[in-house]
Amino acid sequence: MADKANCDLKSLSPLQLFEKVTEQGEKVRALKAGKAPKDEIDAAVRMLLSLKLSYKTTTGQDYQAGLPPKDLVLINNGTTKEEDEDLVDPWNVQTSNAKGVDYDKLIVRFGSSKIDTDLINRIERAIGQKPHHFLRRGIFFSHRDMDQVLDAYENKKPFYLYTGRGPSSQAMHVGHLIPFMFTKWLQEVFDVPLVIQLTDDEKYLWKDMTIEKAYEYAKENAKDIIACGFDVNKTFIFSDLDYLGTSAGFYRNIVKVQKHVTFNQVKGIFGFTDSDCIGKISFPAIQAAPSFSSSFPQIFNGKENIQCLIPCAIDQDPYFRMTRDVAPRIGQPKPALLHSVFFPALQGAQTKMSASDPNSSIFLTDTPKQIKTKINKHAFSGGRDTIEEHRKYGGNCDVDVSFMYLTFFLEDDDRLQQLKQAYTSGELLTGELKKVLIETMQPLVAAHQERRKQVTDEIVKQFMTPRKLAFEF
Amino acid sequence: MADKANCDLKSLSPLQLFEKVTEQGEKVRALKAGKAPKDEIDAAVRMLLSLKLSYKTTTGQDYQAGLPPKDLVLINNGTTKEEDEDLVDPWNVQTSNAKGVDYDKLIVRFGSSKIDTDLINRIERAIGQKPHHFLRRGIFFSHRDMDQVLDAYENKKPFYLYTGRGPSSQAMHVGHLIPFMFTKWLQEVFDVPLVIQLTDDEKYLWKDMTIEKAYEYAKENAKDIIACGFDVNKTFIFSDLDYLGTSAGFYRNIVKVQKHVTFNQVKGIFGFTDSDCIGKISFPAIQAAPSFSSSFPQIFNGKENIQCLIPCAIDQDPYFRMTRDVAPRIGQPKPALLHSVFFPALQGAQTKMSASDPNSSIFLTDTPKQIKTKINKHAFSGGRDTIEEHRKYGGNCDVDVSFMYLTFFLEDDDRLQQLKQAYTSGELLTGELKKVLIETMQPLVAAHQERRKQVTDEIVKQFMTPRKLAFEF
Repeated sequence: MADKANCDLKSLSPLQLFEKVTEQGEKVRALKAGKAPKDEIDAAVRMLLSLKLSYKTTTGQDYQAGLPPKDLVLINNGTTKEEDEDLVDPWNVQTSNAKGVDYDKLIVRFGSSKIDTDLINRIERAIGQKPHHFLRRGIFFSHRDMDQVLDAYENKKPFYLYTGRGPSSQAMHVGHLIPFMFTKWLQEVFDVPLVIQLTDDEKYLWKDMTIEKAYEYAKENAKDIIACGFDVNKTFIFSDLDYLGTSAGFYRNIVKVQKHVTFNQVKGIFGFTDSDCIGKISFPAIQAAPSFSSSFPQIFNGKENIQCLIPCAIDQDPYFRMTRDVAPRIGQPKPALLHSVFFPALQGAQTKMSASDPNSSIFLTDTPKQIKTKINKHAFSGGRDTIEEHRKYGGNCDVDVSFMYLTFFLEDDDRLQQLKQAYTSGELLTGELKKVLIETMQPLVAAHQERRKQVTDEIVKQFMTPRKLAFEF
Repeated sequence: MADKANCDLKSLSPLQLFEKVTEQGEKVRALKAGKAPKDEIDAAVRMLLSLKLSYKTTTGQDYQAGLPPKDLVLINNGTTKEEDEDLVDPWNVQTSNAKGVDYDKLIVRFGSSKIDTDLINRIERAIGQKPHHFLRRGIFFSHRDMDQVLDAYENKKPFYLYTGRGPSSQAMHVGHLIPFMFTKWLQEVFDVPLVIQLTDDEKYLWKDMTIEKAYEYAKENAKDIIACGFDVNKTFIFSDLDYLGTSAGFYRNIVKVQKHVTFNQVKGIFGFTDSDCIGKISFPAIQAAPSFSSSFPQIFNGKENIQCLIPCAIDQDPYFRMTRDVAPRIGQPKPALLHSVFFPALQGAQTKMSASDPNSSIFLTDTPKQIKTKINKHAFSGGRDTIEEHRKYGGNCDVDVSFMYLTFFLEDDDRLQQLKQAYTSGELLTGELKKVLIETMQPLVAAHQERRKQVTDEIVKQFMTPRKLAFEF
């Protein structure tokens, strides 16, 4: 009996063990409070100590109440969030700070690693060229196991990229392009296959939307993604609603993940409740499964052990912490991650842009005039109230949304440095900074629109057809 | 705000409304117990009354605490089961009565309808021949909406059959054949398409079994099913692990069901807990989806409104009560059902046969000698302790397992009646009754084995390939 119990404990993940200790602790407290017989309390305490020991053996850390194991910190549980903490999960990003979310704190809370100068230098050596400005400027700021990906790359071992989008509407804004622009760069410099998941099933489950509409948005969004310039020979874009009914490997991986994650776990990670539909509850497995190469037998020739690297905004991390927790238990490598900051709304960095408020964002369908008006009217300024004050005290780049947008979209490092200096010193006025942004965004959006026009339904079909890519495995 | 709330209530299913009323009732009690302010209690009571009214409008019944709406009675919740009630759910069948489960009580508890003489006569008129002995002898004893199926049939409208099996092991026993023998008969007399689901994903989720093993069992079990004599031109057999990755329509229906069922509901229906994996929690939708013809676009030419009839053992009813609750909310017809009694273990009718205990059942792989030994050694007898007593008082057919088996497998009504009379009067001894059973089962199992030998992997592949069947839709 004792052997059986120990054996069972060994098969548990750190998070499951953590939950077991917590549960047992509560039991002991309840027994004591209820003045239960001494031998009953003693037995429960002995069990608690044994569980704590198992936890320490497994995680290498002492059990601390309320502090889950490092790789799988609970974040969306309102009751554990401290009052001054930012709220960050796949559906909400909120902070009271005008500079935006405190990303250093987030790294500690999520248990990820900072992308530091050493790592950026290592990437530069590996690829033999200057890293993307998203890396140099801290827009991609956090990672998990990027060193392992570089180890693999340096040893000529293959890896692949996986990113995605929830197609909640036809309209995408410039913020949506960030992960795709960066992924395109990664694909080019590392020359690796890429899979892009469109979670139309998620949108159907979460929104008041028909399946047909969600699928239509997926195909429309695919056009904007393709317009970022992905190579059709190296990229597979898929809608869940489509691909689940086409792939022998995808559903098998989904059901494997679903067997190894309990409702207790998704409740802790995503904040689901008993009133949520069972589709939401099981959905995280569907976002997890593309992290395993066997979900794409047509690309990887059925190979199961190919390392995956996921570039995404940090709010998607809960899905992949869950995935990394499950991976070793189903005999798969943990996916590595590169996390980006959030793209701020025009109104300020307290929240993410929203596709449902047309004035919160520059949309990929906006005309040059709309772009100009939106920036002039809505872009939150870090400048002073009067020209005199501005000249005297200078503007504040840390909260100025126009300047933030330029760090995303103005590639010229020297120019950006000059602008920062001139704005901070008061030499450059808000209107002038906004003019630079307008002149940066107008051609960028126009060029995107031009490329998107070239993306026919036929091209979308090519990208979305399961097939062999231009790599050998 | 009031309008919004009313509007929301209208979109709720009877079961959801029932839960809301129950919840609100508990809230009122808690407020009163906690001596809350009078206006707060009053507001909660007003809400309760309004919810009860909505419930009555929707269901046509008054709300009764603990008595869910008729079409969706909770059964697996240990706390609501009365002490003398039988336990019946997809994973357990238990009763303390040697005659087996009390099926009349079960009909009342499940809210289904008895298959009475009127219905059997109507079936006879519709098909123009004598109904199957499973119907005549009450082995299929309960139904839902069979009248509607007959209406459709008489009006030359199409319907289709759906049944299935969880492939938990390679070894099937004679009890597993019951639904398939009956389904084959239904298919022949009504000349309709048939789909058979093998829930290998369910077995992977519930058992300590690899995906590969579950899939292997599915294909092995398909051979035994095919050996029942199904027509390959009219029958599609599918493994979930396979078909989910092949069908455009199946996953779409699964996700539709998953959007319309909450964790609270599956908790009530199936007794899931927070510690269950998310795969189990979302699985009921996978057993529900084949009830909708759009899950099989290749068979039904994409048609969505074709009536489904499900012959199954009564323990599977919870899945289909859930399905019937969801169907109108996703614009689909409710499946009709025909329920069978359970096949008793050799040791007695208190429980279902189990594939894991070789002596509890006659297996389809047993030799004539094994069959003889098992029946002689293990079949529970309703006879008396001594020959003298038996001759004097007679045997009890109600608890005699050999006699029960003969009601399943001896087709000759007159012979069965004679045996019953002779055994009850004491004229026929237990050993003699067992001999009749042995002589019935030996050729039946041998013939099955002979037919199974003819079922090649190639034939299995034909049955399991999604394709058009010999019907026009």
